[in-house]
Amino acid sequence: MIQNNLLIAAALQQPHSRTPVWLMRQAGRILVEYKAVRSQFANFKEFVKTPEACAEVTLQPVDILGVDAAIIFSDILVVPEAMGCNYEMLESRGPWFEHTIATSQDVALLSEEVVPQLNYVTDAIRLTKKALQQRVPLIGFAGAPFTIAAYMTEGSGSKTFSKTKKILYQQPALAHQLLQKITNSTIAYLQAQINAGADLVQLFDSWAAVLTIEQYEEFGLRYITQIATALKSSHPHIPITVFAKGANYSLSQLAASPCDVIGLDWTIDPKYALQHSGTRTLQGNADPCLLYADKATIVEATKRMLAHFEGRNYIANLGHGLYPDTPVSNVHYFIETIKTFG
Amino acid sequence: MIQNNLLIAAALQQPHSRTPVWLMRQAGRILVEYKAVRSQFANFKEFVKTPEACAEVTLQPVDILGVDAAIIFSDILVVPEAMGCNYEMLESRGPWFEHTIATSQDVALLSEEVVPQLNYVTDAIRLTKKALQQRVPLIGFAGAPFTIAAYMTEGSGSKTFSKTKKILYQQPALAHQLLQKITNSTIAYLQAQINAGADLVQLFDSWAAVLTIEQYEEFGLRYITQIATALKSSHPHIPITVFAKGANYSLSQLAASPCDVIGLDWTIDPKYALQHSGTRTLQGNADPCLLYADKATIVEATKRMLAHFEGRNYIANLGHGLYPDTPVSNVHYFIETIKTFG
Repeated sequence: MIQNNLLIAAALQQPHSRTPVWLMRQAGRILVEYKAVRSQFANFKEFVKTPEACAEVTLQPVDILGVDAAIIFSDILVVPEAMGCNYEMLESRGPWFEHTIATSQDVALLSEEVVPQLNYVTDAIRLTKKALQQRVPLIGFAGAPFTIAAYMTEGSGSKTFSKTKKILYQQPALAHQLLQKITNSTIAYLQAQINAGADLVQLFDSWAAVLTIEQYEEFGLRYITQIATALKSSHPHIPITVFAKGANYSLSQLAASPCDVIGLDWTIDPKYALQHSGTRTLQGNADPCLLYADKATIVEATKRMLAHFEGRNYIANLGHGLYPDTPVSNVHYFIETIKTFG
Repeated sequence: MIQNNLLIAAALQQPHSRTPVWLMRQAGRILVEYKAVRSQFANFKEFVKTPEACAEVTLQPVDILGVDAAIIFSDILVVPEAMGCNYEMLESRGPWFEHTIATSQDVALLSEEVVPQLNYVTDAIRLTKKALQQRVPLIGFAGAPFTIAAYMTEGSGSKTFSKTKKILYQQPALAHQLLQKITNSTIAYLQAQINAGADLVQLFDSWAAVLTIEQYEEFGLRYITQIATALKSSHPHIPITVFAKGANYSLSQLAASPCDVIGLDWTIDPKYALQHSGTRTLQGNADPCLLYADKATIVEATKRMLAHFEGRNYIANLGHGLYPDTPVSNVHYFIETIKTFG
């Protein structure tokens, strides 16, 4: 039914004619068209809560960049907010939580009934699907439970997440209570996204790299597996992608989860990734800064990336989100190289 | 001549009776005795430039914690400052450079004659050596060239170091000019530290993880190898440690350099590290946050770490610097476990 179904076919290991390509943060500040929409809102959260605006910027990269998938414009922190843990997006510092989670009473006060409060996301998905007219698939997403818990306990981004990790070491039971509530909320939220029209869902575990391998197994993977298992049960044909940035040593465990696609960051050796990911579809992993280079360098490095993953079901992407000062022309060179040689 | 020579013996793969232990950032804010000295200075840089104070805090962990080595109290950013690129240490934000390096003229203006300007470090080393009375070895250190260049071009710490990486992609020749000047300065600086009494030197490549494997080979390893080769030529019996945080996929290349010891961060799988480091001595790699846990957990995890590295020449340490809010008692449990079971 979807005209360009390359992404779904690659994710589900079905025959397809070429490597699909999309870019994390493709809907964002690199496009003047995005900035025009963004400028209509006093702050980021107001923007995220306006379905028409989210749908508009979600469609922009499909039209302007020619990517093989749209990804709904939203933020992973809508979930903690819907659970009752409010955040602000500060221009200078990024996300910031006034109240952090520190006790089991804090956890007890959190709600798991997030779906009604996140109608603005499912509405945006419905609007986008309609406007897309089945041209390309639409990706839904959520933060992986550890990353969401990290923000809720640390209160902001951090180099070390030592407040979060202190809880893992000192109060593991509390951490598990919190992670379980986030997991339950996330399952319901992703199911609602799929019911609204999302064709694939991606879990972002942005802060996985602060954990040891053993901790990632206990506090990260366990909950990712729960989510993937629940979604495979409710929506068996919807592919699931997991992108655990920096958790490269847990690749074989991620490949043992029910997730269909494993996202790779730009620091991983493709040979290592191929060896430690079973037969899973892989996604990634160009350095976002490659797109600062000249055309010849971009084309050459992109072709090398394609060659690395040849023989595996593969979705071309960056190994991290697009950086805001990336020239649009360079994004085109990247995408065109995939479309020509992928 | 040194009474407790465990560190040097482990580094040079000579017979020794047990695993040595020291901790990155062992001289620092976890000790009230450190804070008492620190409080005598209006700012961090004034403190770093006072040899008597640096010697005093360098000795504190030897006396209070019973570690098997002292590491001279200083900062990796004294080198760019001596080259002519001034920094401030902001309490809230960490290091900050008013002027960053962006053109070859900027690089041309940098001096390589750093040793006379860094007399305060070599003086601190001489004072420390005298006070140590050969009880344990004294470690000298410097930033690895890529990490120093990253600060000089980015102007501060960064999650992405996209300004730095933009230069690597757009002006690789400029990057190499800068890295070569830093390398020349660092060789002279480390030779001066050794001549003043440093018994081992460590290179800290704190931001290695932002690079791809290919970039790390070109912009990181090449200059580390130059430094190690020069030091092995001038001071063949002084061991060299390299700690490239997060550059775990470059382990086998690091092991092919003339460095004697490879530092490991806490995210690496010890099995992977043993397989990809030839026969090099390894150093690390406890999670600094382990020291937030209770005694039983610390002892058990530390014993597990020792078991992982059994059969290899090995120096016990953390996989990152001590965090300032670590309880001193927990540091004792870690050290005592190494001394009892290592």
